[in-house]
Amino acid sequence: MPEKKEITVEENVLDANRRLALANLDTLNRKHIRSLDILGSIGSGKTSIVKQCIRRLKKDYRIAAIAGDLTTTIDADRIKEEGAPVLQINTGGQCHLDAAVIGKTLKSLNLDDLDLILIENVGNLICPGSFPLGTHDRMVVVSVTEGPYMVVKHPYIFMDASVLAINKMDLAEIMGVDMNRLKSEALQIKPDIKVVFTNAKTGEGIENLIDALNLKPPRHA
Amino acid sequence: MPEKKEITVEENVLDANRRLALANLDTLNRKHIRSLDILGSIGSGKTSIVKQCIRRLKKDYRIAAIAGDLTTTIDADRIKEEGAPVLQINTGGQCHLDAAVIGKTLKSLNLDDLDLILIENVGNLICPGSFPLGTHDRMVVVSVTEGPYMVVKHPYIFMDASVLAINKMDLAEIMGVDMNRLKSEALQIKPDIKVVFTNAKTGEGIENLIDALNLKPPRHA
Repeated sequence: MPEKKEITVEENVLDANRRLALANLDTLNRKHIRSLDILGSIGSGKTSIVKQCIRRLKKDYRIAAIAGDLTTTIDADRIKEEGAPVLQINTGGQCHLDAAVIGKTLKSLNLDDLDLILIENVGNLICPGSFPLGTHDRMVVVSVTEGPYMVVKHPYIFMDASVLAINKMDLAEIMGVDMNRLKSEALQIKPDIKVVFTNAKTGEGIENLIDALNLKPPRHA
Repeated sequence: MPEKKEITVEENVLDANRRLALANLDTLNRKHIRSLDILGSIGSGKTSIVKQCIRRLKKDYRIAAIAGDLTTTIDADRIKEEGAPVLQINTGGQCHLDAAVIGKTLKSLNLDDLDLILIENVGNLICPGSFPLGTHDRMVVVSVTEGPYMVVKHPYIFMDASVLAINKMDLAEIMGVDMNRLKSEALQIKPDIKVVFTNAKTGEGIENLIDALNLKPPRHA
């Protein structure tokens, strides 16, 4: 019965991840650090959104970023330009970050010096959904250039997300993509998800995103 | 030593997949059927390319398509419009097709009535790379809208591909993406990969792609 055995192994991996995710959340809470797991496909604009958020929030929060990728340091190098410390996690072939690697990474940070941790997950819309990291929120970033089906094809990844950024909004018309339709499809999957249209290149919509993430600093509120 | 155990499980899964892939290849060879595994991210244009290929090749080949997706039948429904039989495989949460599910699917087809099988894999640039299906060729489809880093970030998926389609070529300028640079990056990873620029919406470049895949029917050669 090889199939049954395989399912058991998978369940154990997911259970173990959930336990470690709860431990990470506990660590973050004890240190009063807010945390965000950012998921999305290759080229959706995750790194650009992280950069835009750091640019606006670094006056009010002590921020660190963690960037997951198979082999390169491209994302971390780009985020570093904003002046926040960045840790790059190279997963080798693994298609997602997991709570274990985030737990190890948290140990290497000086958590007393941080208010906010932004985690950019590995770029795909499937695998990271099954591995909660123990963050307070999850944001999914999709780009209109991914066509009209990226929401309905990936229901699982939206179920645990509190915010959806529909990025590259300036290209919606040329791509023939109806952003309001994407929004209503996301709301069908997750009725309380907050949906924000963004253009991470110009910064359009980023303030709304920060608002949706409840990251607006008190003095701006 | 839980980590060591995990690696062993993973190796066994990959080894088992390779054995089943060889069995699939043997089945296809005995029936004189050519086969192609098509990989790429969500929205890269895999389905549109499959449709364009079927439109041009169905006079000369008896074609079936297999489409992998988490939960929907969107791709299969679109491919059916071209008049070829299509089997949809819903993987649930699984991020890739594997040789076992393709083996079962081959059993449900009348292989004596087929010359060519096109398999559209689940949309992401990571996981499908580790699971050969036993096809004769692999094609990766990327879209210029995925930004400038999709090739260098995913070396593994190009290593076993014989053809790379760089799609949505009409949007390269507006996206600020240098297609020749993507091409040279792919050639650094896989020196004999054939790179073709395509616009799957208009059909531009599809004849070159068919050529690169050695699918040009004899009377057209």
